[in-house]
Amino acid sequence: MVNKHSITAKAHPNIAFIKYWGNQDNSLRLPSNGSISMNLANLNTVTTAAISQGSDHDSLELNGIQQSGPVLVRVQQYMDQFRNIFIKHEHLDIKSTNDFPISAGIASSASAFAALSTAAANIYDLDLTQNEISALARLGSGSACRSIPTGFTEWKTGNTHEDSYAVSIAPENHWNLWDCIAVIQSSPKDVSSTQGHNLANSSPLQYARIKDAARRLDICRNAILNKDFETLAEIIELDSNMMHAVMMTSKPTILYWQPTSIAIMQEVRQMRKNGIAAAYTLDAGSNVHVICNGNDIQKIEDLLVGIAGVNKIIKSPVGSGASVVSLT
Amino acid sequence: MVNKHSITAKAHPNIAFIKYWGNQDNSLRLPSNGSISMNLANLNTVTTAAISQGSDHDSLELNGIQQSGPVLVRVQQYMDQFRNIFIKHEHLDIKSTNDFPISAGIASSASAFAALSTAAANIYDLDLTQNEISALARLGSGSACRSIPTGFTEWKTGNTHEDSYAVSIAPENHWNLWDCIAVIQSSPKDVSSTQGHNLANSSPLQYARIKDAARRLDICRNAILNKDFETLAEIIELDSNMMHAVMMTSKPTILYWQPTSIAIMQEVRQMRKNGIAAAYTLDAGSNVHVICNGNDIQKIEDLLVGIAGVNKIIKSPVGSGASVVSLT
Repeated sequence: MVNKHSITAKAHPNIAFIKYWGNQDNSLRLPSNGSISMNLANLNTVTTAAISQGSDHDSLELNGIQQSGPVLVRVQQYMDQFRNIFIKHEHLDIKSTNDFPISAGIASSASAFAALSTAAANIYDLDLTQNEISALARLGSGSACRSIPTGFTEWKTGNTHEDSYAVSIAPENHWNLWDCIAVIQSSPKDVSSTQGHNLANSSPLQYARIKDAARRLDICRNAILNKDFETLAEIIELDSNMMHAVMMTSKPTILYWQPTSIAIMQEVRQMRKNGIAAAYTLDAGSNVHVICNGNDIQKIEDLLVGIAGVNKIIKSPVGSGASVVSLT
Repeated sequence: MVNKHSITAKAHPNIAFIKYWGNQDNSLRLPSNGSISMNLANLNTVTTAAISQGSDHDSLELNGIQQSGPVLVRVQQYMDQFRNIFIKHEHLDIKSTNDFPISAGIASSASAFAALSTAAANIYDLDLTQNEISALARLGSGSACRSIPTGFTEWKTGNTHEDSYAVSIAPENHWNLWDCIAVIQSSPKDVSSTQGHNLANSSPLQYARIKDAARRLDICRNAILNKDFETLAEIIELDSNMMHAVMMTSKPTILYWQPTSIAIMQEVRQMRKNGIAAAYTLDAGSNVHVICNGNDIQKIEDLLVGIAGVNKIIKSPVGSGASVVSLT
């Protein structure tokens, strides 16, 4: 065993084509339905973990700011859960940076817990498989498990902690898809994803959404494997609408869409009528992710920046999974 | 029998609190779920019917313009169905005027067929009950049956032509509610309501929406009877979201909402947080109906006209049912 002082791991957020919304088990984050996503190469969370010298708690520095309050508590509870599994006792000093806005519909918690679980597994010298790390990432944030394997990944629901993880269904170089994110709001959301997941079952439509999920997953997986953009476009727009349908019919209702979100969704449908390979999908937020063919990216960006209310465009091709980038 | 030369009938459109979307029988327009609405006193369709002298077809003048094409065909097919039931042969010359924009999310077909069925029943000298006229109106446009009785009305699904009609659940003076309609688009819709109804069952969410309808109808009916605005607000917003959830997940998906629709929906939720009795509901279109307490109408109008994209406000208190206004 090398005597490591610190481990730095990197992970990308992912954008879901078939969405995760609602749990069959909230504490283990076992999802109600399977999901499929693509990792985003140009967005990065880089997290360094070091064994804390003599401290009785984990510390967290996020984007240069030492954390206290709910963000720190969430990470500490996660690390306690992590240590319980492996009977570890040392606390960690964690430093994490994101190069994209957090809590605004870009899944920062996914890359955060993917990078943290990877760093923690290594600093504690655990010899884990990718599936095991994916399951651990899931405990922090469900969709984080999809940021562990490479490229296009699928998270099968599973029934226990051990068998609920994501696997790669196609590598990052399989298909030149890009996510062109129209950022329309960078401030934190009214309702966090974790709160929203707990409300999912209060929608009279959630059960129907889950019951139909295997069908949507099959269509989406095959569209990726066959590089069939038109089929992919239809199923991801349907699935995004379906998740927001559940949100807007839960108790209380959640309406993440803003006027600009609708303007973009309508524009993307028009683009496709005009022969541009583009499809929209929205996570739990108001930003619109325009999934598109790499060849069309400039045309799409030009059209999106012309829409009132679009603050910024973030573009990314398909990304790799989580990895250790350095140890000292 | 008086020898009538012509009959003029009047009907109001209605705004649904619990929506009609999808049929169990398309040709008879037997709905998949019951619905509740309020008639709109300030919006009027006035229709005059006269027995055509020797013509072998019905004619239709709409808002001063002699009709041909699909609008005429729809009315002719309706009148053929109507005559078949009563074994009548004479065709009609029909003149109809609306004082509000047609085919833009304000249910012009409801008041149109409510007025026409009332006029036709009288010009043919049929001695019909209100329930029978309501069922006949339904054959022309499902929601038209709700414009026959007065005030707040409920349409129970029924299983046959004869038992699928609407009845009044509270008279027009029961509660000082207003509909404050923010008109944001007066052009005809991409997808007509009739086409949309036929797509309803292609949504994986429609069955769940229908299965939950009895619960929503009970809550809405009781909220009206008890004049409980907060409960009414929550259930009509939920029900509107639920119908649009089905629309946006049908095959193909239909997205009636425009950016301004969302801006208004968000504003109405904010109004309610600020203690104003207002709730939104949208029919198959982009206009937003703000249901509100008559005392708050001026405040609400002032807020709505300040929203970019709102072209016009149409206001109406609760209206009566359909009636004959003159005969010559």
